[in-house]
Amino acid sequence: MQSKEPADLLIAPRWLLPIAPAPDTFERHGVVVDRGRIVGVGALADLEARFEPRERVLRPDHVLMPGFVNAHTRASMMLLRGLPVQGPLMRWWRETVAPAELRWVNPDFVREGTQLAIAEMLRAGITAFGESYLFPDEAARAAAAARVRAVIGLPVQDAENSSNPHSVTQLARAERLWDDYKSNPWVSLYFAPPPSYAISDAALTHVRSVADEIDARIAMPVHETEVEVRDTLSQHGRRPLQRLADLGLLRPGFTAVHMNRLDPADLELAHETGIAVVACPQSDLRLGSGWTPVARLQERGVPVGLGSDSPVTAGALDVLAEARLAAQLASARQGIEARPLSAYDALRAATLGGAIALGLGATCGSIEVGKSADLVCIDLGSLACQPVVSVAEAVLFSATRQNVSDVWVAGRAAVAQGRLLAFDEQEQRHLLQQWAARIRMTG
Amino acid sequence: MQSKEPADLLIAPRWLLPIAPAPDTFERHGVVVDRGRIVGVGALADLEARFEPRERVLRPDHVLMPGFVNAHTRASMMLLRGLPVQGPLMRWWRETVAPAELRWVNPDFVREGTQLAIAEMLRAGITAFGESYLFPDEAARAAAAARVRAVIGLPVQDAENSSNPHSVTQLARAERLWDDYKSNPWVSLYFAPPPSYAISDAALTHVRSVADEIDARIAMPVHETEVEVRDTLSQHGRRPLQRLADLGLLRPGFTAVHMNRLDPADLELAHETGIAVVACPQSDLRLGSGWTPVARLQERGVPVGLGSDSPVTAGALDVLAEARLAAQLASARQGIEARPLSAYDALRAATLGGAIALGLGATCGSIEVGKSADLVCIDLGSLACQPVVSVAEAVLFSATRQNVSDVWVAGRAAVAQGRLLAFDEQEQRHLLQQWAARIRMTG
Repeated sequence: MQSKEPADLLIAPRWLLPIAPAPDTFERHGVVVDRGRIVGVGALADLEARFEPRERVLRPDHVLMPGFVNAHTRASMMLLRGLPVQGPLMRWWRETVAPAELRWVNPDFVREGTQLAIAEMLRAGITAFGESYLFPDEAARAAAAARVRAVIGLPVQDAENSSNPHSVTQLARAERLWDDYKSNPWVSLYFAPPPSYAISDAALTHVRSVADEIDARIAMPVHETEVEVRDTLSQHGRRPLQRLADLGLLRPGFTAVHMNRLDPADLELAHETGIAVVACPQSDLRLGSGWTPVARLQERGVPVGLGSDSPVTAGALDVLAEARLAAQLASARQGIEARPLSAYDALRAATLGGAIALGLGATCGSIEVGKSADLVCIDLGSLACQPVVSVAEAVLFSATRQNVSDVWVAGRAAVAQGRLLAFDEQEQRHLLQQWAARIRMTG
Repeated sequence: MQSKEPADLLIAPRWLLPIAPAPDTFERHGVVVDRGRIVGVGALADLEARFEPRERVLRPDHVLMPGFVNAHTRASMMLLRGLPVQGPLMRWWRETVAPAELRWVNPDFVREGTQLAIAEMLRAGITAFGESYLFPDEAARAAAAARVRAVIGLPVQDAENSSNPHSVTQLARAERLWDDYKSNPWVSLYFAPPPSYAISDAALTHVRSVADEIDARIAMPVHETEVEVRDTLSQHGRRPLQRLADLGLLRPGFTAVHMNRLDPADLELAHETGIAVVACPQSDLRLGSGWTPVARLQERGVPVGLGSDSPVTAGALDVLAEARLAAQLASARQGIEARPLSAYDALRAATLGGAIALGLGATCGSIEVGKSADLVCIDLGSLACQPVVSVAEAVLFSATRQNVSDVWVAGRAAVAQGRLLAFDEQEQRHLLQQWAARIRMTG
């Protein structure tokens, strides 16, 4: 008789929703984890026959699925939650956000705010995030210390636009950070130019050539608002996406964030160039910016992820809520014809779609052998989630982030039976209250 | 020295959001309850000086506010959760809902389904609901037994439209039910005609005269979809709301459900006639029916409540989620100009607005002396709800229904520190699973 393979952990949920390779849901299936990786996915009987796990986690009312990916956020802005919100976007940012940032945002704000946001995100089942904010080195430090997966944007601006000293990252500085993190298992980096109306052809071309050289991803806001599209049309005679295509930026390593205002030609261009998209439904809807036609993009084979954008506008860092809203909005016409988004496709966007949009498609986002064990259990036992006919429907439309009971990042338990293990919650609350008091006093 | 007044209960939360008479939030304030009613609202020091409560509930991280009102739902349809959902509304109802109802819906379904829905709603902080479904007598029985506030619609149809034997309620039967419940403290009734394209002028006029005679409310779907408006325009030469006005139905006792497709003349008519409105954002958005311009109606003085409509489309019975979506959608243009909905105004719709739309405005919906002690505590202590700058913003955009920690209906604790007391949760789950098994076997 062959001896069994030792492994760290066997998770036996009621349902398994692996997201890839197929949209299926399984019962009496489980996942085996060893040294941070998924080493077995299959029928429990087969897994028990093959593996000798040191630990077993049984979750009889739960679905086991990949951790959520928050593919675009400004994590440390959670400290500014409560700032008044009123669209349109650009006026809000100029009149409300920018003055608040000038007053309060510094390296400590970003490092500690990111740490607090990571604690909040883990509790909500988010195991990876794409960051786009000030002081990226501080955000990277916080993520590496917390051992969660982070993809940190390096702000890029034209020299002549650098009125805000915080937000300028010279490419030289970027290269230094690149060297610091190139072999870090948790943190990777990308270039984050501003929306296209705020950056010249020359600067975009320069970013593209540097990114090509070091094989870096680029992600930036594209077609976020009608005004953006209109202004670029009048300035450059083309829609923003076409302008970026003409400058050679659109390629599989490019992620267009927002993409709320699309026509059929935009969809075709997204498909042809192999870009990814990140939708931010809660934030964009609240600011009156519109919404991303997620199902129409997916139908053309464009990977779509979901992001909170700023927690000030999203409320909580809650990718499940983003996915629910994306699905609810999918049947509302806006420009191009509406197309329903299935619960499974919304959850795929919330996991694998986001992973692909962050360049982590080979690492996480689905439950497949060889991938990192970035996993969540969601409890569907409460009356509000029953009866469970379609697991994806129950998760998307009936559960909330608070039904997330267990979270693993690379096999390490960050949340267990609803309790945050990755951080001391009391300490984090204390830290948050200190920031809240400081910000209120100087407000 | 005057002796203190004995009272049943003093609740001392971190914040008090009474909703009425003013949009203020208070600290170091509390509420005193005696024999099911609110007898004191004010500064804790004053309340302690005046009352001798038998019980004190201290909630140091929580906001105390009125219970949520689910102003339009089909509670027992929670047993059909998982039924495929795809708009447009009328095709979905005809092809998917109607066959399922014919197969499964009977008096037991409605009574036990309503009971389960009440358990689910209490857990989510919903202390009153407006029901519009089949077998209203069974729904009424379930609500009275559970001791929650229910306003039950009596379906009214033209005789010639009565193909579905379940949904016909002759007015004679209605009058009998009226007598049964006229002095019941929990249940009241209203007339529930179908959308205006499905009912004749003669039948509507007859309902109006009966309602006038016994001082009954009427609530019905109005301007739910573009198709409804278009068809009535071509059939009757007027928009549906105008037709109802011309038939004399619009008055303060009339509630228009949905009201997704409004033009400025509709707003004016709603204002002039003193009707109330119920918006169902989650369900209507998902079905592609559009959304209600809540802030524009409130601005014209029209009381607006919020409802789940069917739990099949809404996902969970979750008025807080409805309020959040209403606020997010408020900045999206649809026909008339968009107008932002403040967090407070959204929470007012979720409580007092719904109470008014159900004819319960004098009974509940706000924390005022003399009203029923229908109350909820919401825990804002978690990282995702912090920092709390505006209590209304934190509740609306950062909390979920699972942050509801305590619920009282007429002073009786239905949920305490997250635990459902009003029902044995295990028994309810067992009952639900029996239904789920039955429905799946005959599916």
